[in-house]
Amino acid sequence: MSSLFQQHHDALNKAIEALRQRTFYAHYPEHPKAYGPDAPAQGQQAFENQLNHPFTQLLQTGATAQAGEEESPYWGTSLGISYPITPVNTLVSNAKTALAAWRKAGVKERTGILIESLERVKNRFFEIAWATQHTTGQSFIMSFQASGPHAADRAMETIALGYTELTRFPHSLRWEKPAGGGAFITLDKTFTPVPKGVAMVIGCSTFPTWNTVPGLYASLITGNTAIVKPHPKAILPIAIFVAELQQVLHENGFDPNTVQLAPDTGQHLITKELAEHPDMKIIDYTGSSIFGNYIETLQSKGKTVFTEKAGVNSVIIDSVLDLRQVMRNLAFSVSLYSGQMCTAPQNIFIPETGVPSADGLIPYETVVDVLKNEVASLALNPKMGAGTLGAIQNPTTLERAQSAGKIGGTVLLESPPVKNPEFENARICAPTIIEVAAKDADLYEREFFGPIVLVIKTENTQQSLKLAQNMALHHGAITCGVYCTNEELAQHITDEMNSVFVPVSLNFTGFIWVNQHAAFSDFHVTGGNPAGNASFTDALFINKRFVWVGNRINM
Amino acid sequence: MSSLFQQHHDALNKAIEALRQRTFYAHYPEHPKAYGPDAPAQGQQAFENQLNHPFTQLLQTGATAQAGEEESPYWGTSLGISYPITPVNTLVSNAKTALAAWRKAGVKERTGILIESLERVKNRFFEIAWATQHTTGQSFIMSFQASGPHAADRAMETIALGYTELTRFPHSLRWEKPAGGGAFITLDKTFTPVPKGVAMVIGCSTFPTWNTVPGLYASLITGNTAIVKPHPKAILPIAIFVAELQQVLHENGFDPNTVQLAPDTGQHLITKELAEHPDMKIIDYTGSSIFGNYIETLQSKGKTVFTEKAGVNSVIIDSVLDLRQVMRNLAFSVSLYSGQMCTAPQNIFIPETGVPSADGLIPYETVVDVLKNEVASLALNPKMGAGTLGAIQNPTTLERAQSAGKIGGTVLLESPPVKNPEFENARICAPTIIEVAAKDADLYEREFFGPIVLVIKTENTQQSLKLAQNMALHHGAITCGVYCTNEELAQHITDEMNSVFVPVSLNFTGFIWVNQHAAFSDFHVTGGNPAGNASFTDALFINKRFVWVGNRINM
Repeated sequence: MSSLFQQHHDALNKAIEALRQRTFYAHYPEHPKAYGPDAPAQGQQAFENQLNHPFTQLLQTGATAQAGEEESPYWGTSLGISYPITPVNTLVSNAKTALAAWRKAGVKERTGILIESLERVKNRFFEIAWATQHTTGQSFIMSFQASGPHAADRAMETIALGYTELTRFPHSLRWEKPAGGGAFITLDKTFTPVPKGVAMVIGCSTFPTWNTVPGLYASLITGNTAIVKPHPKAILPIAIFVAELQQVLHENGFDPNTVQLAPDTGQHLITKELAEHPDMKIIDYTGSSIFGNYIETLQSKGKTVFTEKAGVNSVIIDSVLDLRQVMRNLAFSVSLYSGQMCTAPQNIFIPETGVPSADGLIPYETVVDVLKNEVASLALNPKMGAGTLGAIQNPTTLERAQSAGKIGGTVLLESPPVKNPEFENARICAPTIIEVAAKDADLYEREFFGPIVLVIKTENTQQSLKLAQNMALHHGAITCGVYCTNEELAQHITDEMNSVFVPVSLNFTGFIWVNQHAAFSDFHVTGGNPAGNASFTDALFINKRFVWVGNRINM
Repeated sequence: MSSLFQQHHDALNKAIEALRQRTFYAHYPEHPKAYGPDAPAQGQQAFENQLNHPFTQLLQTGATAQAGEEESPYWGTSLGISYPITPVNTLVSNAKTALAAWRKAGVKERTGILIESLERVKNRFFEIAWATQHTTGQSFIMSFQASGPHAADRAMETIALGYTELTRFPHSLRWEKPAGGGAFITLDKTFTPVPKGVAMVIGCSTFPTWNTVPGLYASLITGNTAIVKPHPKAILPIAIFVAELQQVLHENGFDPNTVQLAPDTGQHLITKELAEHPDMKIIDYTGSSIFGNYIETLQSKGKTVFTEKAGVNSVIIDSVLDLRQVMRNLAFSVSLYSGQMCTAPQNIFIPETGVPSADGLIPYETVVDVLKNEVASLALNPKMGAGTLGAIQNPTTLERAQSAGKIGGTVLLESPPVKNPEFENARICAPTIIEVAAKDADLYEREFFGPIVLVIKTENTQQSLKLAQNMALHHGAITCGVYCTNEELAQHITDEMNSVFVPVSLNFTGFIWVNQHAAFSDFHVTGGNPAGNASFTDALFINKRFVWVGNRINM
């Protein structure tokens, strides 16, 4: 047994058990203070030292150029970091060369190395937080949690499920079939999980590690070699993961090219060339539906594809206990990182007949007013507003948000003007709220990525449900918030949304939001509707990456 | 807990354990004597009573006609049995209606009902054997074992793995996240395996139950409703399974349309119409590669597809202990059911430099002679020949076999003339052996379904391996027999064949043959090469049929 496996055996077992129980578990605590008093300053220093310098920590081979075009949505300026650029054929050829040894390493050796890499990354969570903030536009605390401990926990989750699946059958055994008269037919059998080959992970600009490491670690634990193709605007956070992986691989006698970083630039994007390469067997993707649909077509060429695309997330409001608590919760959900989370609600269905509450029936107009006020209050709260919103990653998202009034419908709330005193050049934008009629499906049956919220005025909850269900079926959905105090109706709505493979979050108020999916407990994306064909982390996410092959030896 | 679940709980647990250990296990013994002294005559009587009568045991609704065109490959005459013909839209609509209750039944209820159906079928194994013999052309004993106990065991296997997967996560739990100062954020969570919807299984003419029940029971255990579309020439064996399933469903208050039989005729085939129906979500298929490739294209329409298509199975002969034992084993493998098993070897690679044995180097010509003699001896053995060969299911297969000499290459053995004294009209045909050169890849790089064996004369074992590997990669393979007495080389060949997802059977002699795949132990088809995209029974075979959906309720 490898010493790294022994060293991390306890952590592995805890993760396996957590995954099975699905109760609360975090291997990497989300509180920054858990990482010691020196970590924040060290992380900041490391990030600042990296600015305006080439990234030289990778051990991979074959680069022919250096380039980089990251810029901070807070500063509005380039980070000045360049990365090695490697030709596609070299990347794939490197990955193929590294495959034999990694495949033969076996599950325990791979498990030890992969967990060790996360332990090394742990020491750089603050540096990753800075890198994430100044590429994605997330607030510092969200950058820390999402790209550091939460991402590392999702990676740990795939290692744990990978280990479980790869060891679910004995790798060798003797098979004895009674042949009559006390005799036996005897075979020695082996069962080997054979990796599919070379894998790639296509990263997104908003969650460069959280959305990348599950596929990356899932491909690696199952014995594939992997190429990480980050978004050209968000490389540094995942580059740190790759550098630490390569370092641990190298220290343990493996080819650092077992995992490679494949940055590209807006001028010369390599994603299609990499994905279409005949030796590319597995593709993980997070991003727009248009490109995701193209990636899914590559399945017809025998490639294994995992996608997380866009969805249109709904909130169905039927009845509430305390309307203000509900709207305060929703205001936070739609404002957090300016609606740039794939789990953020977009369409809020409210019946024109009003919403029953503990204080009686609240008329539709009042319901909408309370929502409007809570969103505006949060945005304009000097202590909360700028920090909750963060910055807009992509200028196009900002433009769309700023011209949201032209979508159609009635503008209920114009994006409240928010300033971030710390970063005066930040691309910042609070939500716009637009009211549309139920009949105007063409207005709300699509994703408006960013801080745009639609209130859909419906006849009643049955219509709200039908519209939300239909939208999930045809356009996909990752989450659905439901507010309903009638237990039977709540169950009905839940069943109906579940039947189109959308999870329901019921009556969320207080310090829990529909946007958050916890590692080891919540599946992220179900894989059952057009929002994506895969789920973090179900058994398919692991098992599709390798093939069981059983050999029989006559004794 | 349902009483059927309690009743079969012990059987379920034994099956789950067997599947995990993969050691020898049979819930349904393969010895006909295990089923009591009266069973054979009762089975024969039941079959004879069914001849020339409509099949009236189905409880499904909506049939608009009766038809049937089965004929016995032994008698050469029609069985005269007709089946209810139901319009495609009625079948799908029935299946959709049955879905809600079956889905909500939950895993224990479904498990109890499905195992109970197998227990009922057990009482009809002899009847199924007669039905199989006189539709497929298999010998009686193969018909009994393959369509009876072996098929039922493969069904039991999918129930056991289905139960395991559906219960791997708790269906409800309380999640408590520490929120500081001893406080907790508390959610009630549920995890529900939601079935994809309506499933269909497309049967083949040679193994009408063995290849159909794994997909059928896998779809049913995961909560889908299912439509069985048998091959028009082999309906009765699977009709008996469906009738017993419907009976148990009915007795337990479920809609018999939860599983439906959808026979069709050569004049009006309904497979495409059923498969392309927008509500058809899952398709299991066994049959030709051409139709299988079409079925796989339906994945681009969001359908979940499991295929077992054709492969070209190789035998690589490098070195042997006892050549006669090897060739006797191979002769049986290629003759059994006249090469109509998907696992039968077709291409035998032999180096022109000869084959080292315990008795010294055996020249190529002698190796080929021994093979030829063993095949001819078996065919012409009055006690063994006709029984091993069985009959040819499809006249086209017979024609191809009879004109095998025109393929090209050199005919080493013309199909020895075999008579079956019991059935003088039987479509019977022993193997033809043809020698081709390694360079004539166009001759051997395709499947010749039926009793056609190609000997490929190669430069050496490295070339044999390269050709076999290449063929598996491009044309698929389900099995590979290897004869090699050098442990290191045997491991190398195994690794290389495994890398193209082909299992190796090493040095098989005596009473074990490459063709046989045992339930609870051997995976049947790996799913990793063009011979098929699925495997009996790995985790994917279950997990792709449903979606985990997790709901969260704020407390």
